[in-house]
Amino acid sequence: MHNSAAQVILLGDGMGGRPVPALDGQTCLEAGDYPALDEVAKGGECGYMDPIRPGQGVGSDTGHMVILGYDPVEYYTGRGPFEAKGVGIDVQPGDVAFRCNFTTIENGVIKDRRAGRIAEGTDQLAAAAGEAFSDGIDGVEVIFKESVAHRAALVLRGEGLDPRVTDVDPHEAGVEVPQCRPTAEASNDPAAQKTAAIINKFVQRAQEIFDNHQVNQQRRAEGLLPANIVIPRGAGTAPHLTPFSEQYGLSSAMIVEVDIVRGLGLYLGMDVIDVPGATGGMDTDEMAIAQAVVEAAASHDFVLCNIKAPDVGGHDGNAEQKMAAIAKVDHAVGHLLNALDWDSTVLMVSADHCTPVTAMDHTGDAIPVAFYGHGVRPDAVESFGERPFATGSVQRVRGLDIMSIMGNYAGSLPKFGA
Amino acid sequence: MHNSAAQVILLGDGMGGRPVPALDGQTCLEAGDYPALDEVAKGGECGYMDPIRPGQGVGSDTGHMVILGYDPVEYYTGRGPFEAKGVGIDVQPGDVAFRCNFTTIENGVIKDRRAGRIAEGTDQLAAAAGEAFSDGIDGVEVIFKESVAHRAALVLRGEGLDPRVTDVDPHEAGVEVPQCRPTAEASNDPAAQKTAAIINKFVQRAQEIFDNHQVNQQRRAEGLLPANIVIPRGAGTAPHLTPFSEQYGLSSAMIVEVDIVRGLGLYLGMDVIDVPGATGGMDTDEMAIAQAVVEAAASHDFVLCNIKAPDVGGHDGNAEQKMAAIAKVDHAVGHLLNALDWDSTVLMVSADHCTPVTAMDHTGDAIPVAFYGHGVRPDAVESFGERPFATGSVQRVRGLDIMSIMGNYAGSLPKFGA
Repeated sequence: MHNSAAQVILLGDGMGGRPVPALDGQTCLEAGDYPALDEVAKGGECGYMDPIRPGQGVGSDTGHMVILGYDPVEYYTGRGPFEAKGVGIDVQPGDVAFRCNFTTIENGVIKDRRAGRIAEGTDQLAAAAGEAFSDGIDGVEVIFKESVAHRAALVLRGEGLDPRVTDVDPHEAGVEVPQCRPTAEASNDPAAQKTAAIINKFVQRAQEIFDNHQVNQQRRAEGLLPANIVIPRGAGTAPHLTPFSEQYGLSSAMIVEVDIVRGLGLYLGMDVIDVPGATGGMDTDEMAIAQAVVEAAASHDFVLCNIKAPDVGGHDGNAEQKMAAIAKVDHAVGHLLNALDWDSTVLMVSADHCTPVTAMDHTGDAIPVAFYGHGVRPDAVESFGERPFATGSVQRVRGLDIMSIMGNYAGSLPKFGA
Repeated sequence: MHNSAAQVILLGDGMGGRPVPALDGQTCLEAGDYPALDEVAKGGECGYMDPIRPGQGVGSDTGHMVILGYDPVEYYTGRGPFEAKGVGIDVQPGDVAFRCNFTTIENGVIKDRRAGRIAEGTDQLAAAAGEAFSDGIDGVEVIFKESVAHRAALVLRGEGLDPRVTDVDPHEAGVEVPQCRPTAEASNDPAAQKTAAIINKFVQRAQEIFDNHQVNQQRRAEGLLPANIVIPRGAGTAPHLTPFSEQYGLSSAMIVEVDIVRGLGLYLGMDVIDVPGATGGMDTDEMAIAQAVVEAAASHDFVLCNIKAPDVGGHDGNAEQKMAAIAKVDHAVGHLLNALDWDSTVLMVSADHCTPVTAMDHTGDAIPVAFYGHGVRPDAVESFGERPFATGSVQRVRGLDIMSIMGNYAGSLPKFGA
């Protein structure tokens, strides 16, 4: 390990927000009672982070990339490769990888993009698909694997493929499932045309396999939405990322609940640690996650942790749920405050992006960020939230600044010059 | 139209300033009573904008370019093409365009660079020049047209021209009119030498035509300064700018009082809307302008409006006049606050640059900026001004960030990543 303070980044996924009318115009962060987050604000330096530039919203993948110091504008190749890597598929050069949703379709129209947030049985559906596609499609190998909840990954492996194809996911319910097509720039590219044709065959055959699968028969019997189609999106090839240890000279661990971010960690060569009880939902065991962070910080120079639940409440437009999820983040932070040695640890608490319940999607709003512990100069901010942070000393920094800010507090970043 | 909130940018030209001793050290924005601007500050997010970088002053052309997301460092080719386009001259590839001032010269020395801010008769002077130069100069076509007040545009069209020539405008009174010369880098370039020679002939012959023109005989009889010379500056070729609709996928309108900005709007393919009563001076009908903005916002995704008057008071060093001009901006903002639906509109109120009365010119001071309406997270700032905005949540952003900030609030900017 490096002879410097341990660096811990704890992200509440999508934790930042906008004023909520039902909360008297406060945000979910401002309206709730979060004593540990407030303690971090009181004892730390507070402000805002723009992942890429003010106003530009990001995904969980690009949001984590930029915080870890890898410019997504330069290195991002799409969501698919991270998702596939995260579920354990080794994406190779030439492969085209997709993120997929298990989805409910009814009379040709999407009823629920997340199949009622299906929690069990997707492994059986994926196994059935694996058997059906064991000979591939049109000479191309098809690798399909379930991830957490409604999520899955798909990799096409073979000659003459191209990632420049459109999403099969229309990103809304109530519409038909679109065909996969080459993107405008690749409209005449034979490889993109071939890739799109294979995807369309995959989607159609998978629907035939899934619709009457016993998992869905059972779901219908229980009044649940069937996962009777799978819709791929985010096509991409394997990204070329310098390993974290090589980039920073630091040993590192990642404790996250979403495979897309886990995939990023695997690409970066970080120790991706699984925590029993970490579900990515409201039932996640945040104290087990926090304890895993404490243990990882004892054996690594750098630890990044993401707790997914706040983002789910944001996407669902459910302020009460999002506040309960932030309370789980608060509990986890409380455990860190008790368990870590703050003379030799620096902590950043923030989010990968904002997911306001009023927007029900990621926005490009500036993200609240606080630094606490070794090396930090506390400012006058007293509580954790969007508005209180306006007068913090961090002011407004970019995502690509985070690793050098953390490295400075920890003492691991060499000075430039003599 | 786009399925997102309408975006409106209202700029008080040169509205930002510096402390004025006669106002007890307050700025013109701070010293006046502007209830609508204060309402925007109270209900909005406030801070500062640096058009290019902190300290770097800009013109009205570059100031508007950067707010619209076109980097002037990369795309600016001089003031002349915008001015010429703004008065209706189609600047073609190979043309060299100039901004001109009708000016008063007396005994070979410039007495007033703006000919007493001449308001009428410049069309007759321009027509006389058009007749005199109908055969061109040295085989080059000469197109000269009046603009608003003392402003005019000149375009040279022909073989072997070059924009790298110096201004004939010395930017101050009390000095002789300088000769046009090739710039240092183009000192041996035959095209620049030819262009400079033509400009010098144009200036000399135009002076001969104007000095005894009946318009100036009448002005002298009325005790007004004659517009007896015209001085070109800001030589440039046609810029290459991606149309606004193509850049952002938004329909757009521009309502401005100055031809140089109108020219930018025309280059960008925006709907440039003329408002009867919009004069660019203290007598402008700001309520007609505001109503035009309301109507444009009903039929366009994006509207940019500039009210010129505050800049005039700044250039003239007249705090009282500048405050009266800001009050006109305040009235316009008040009308917007009453007339627009703030559940589906986002507003930015700012300026293209600061024109402090103590500097009597544009400065590179950070410009106060406030965002109001859809998607905005109000901060604790309660009044509109340079000092109050120091604690606003916008902190300090760049001009090139504005379009993504607006697109985020409006919901028109796609996220990057998944």
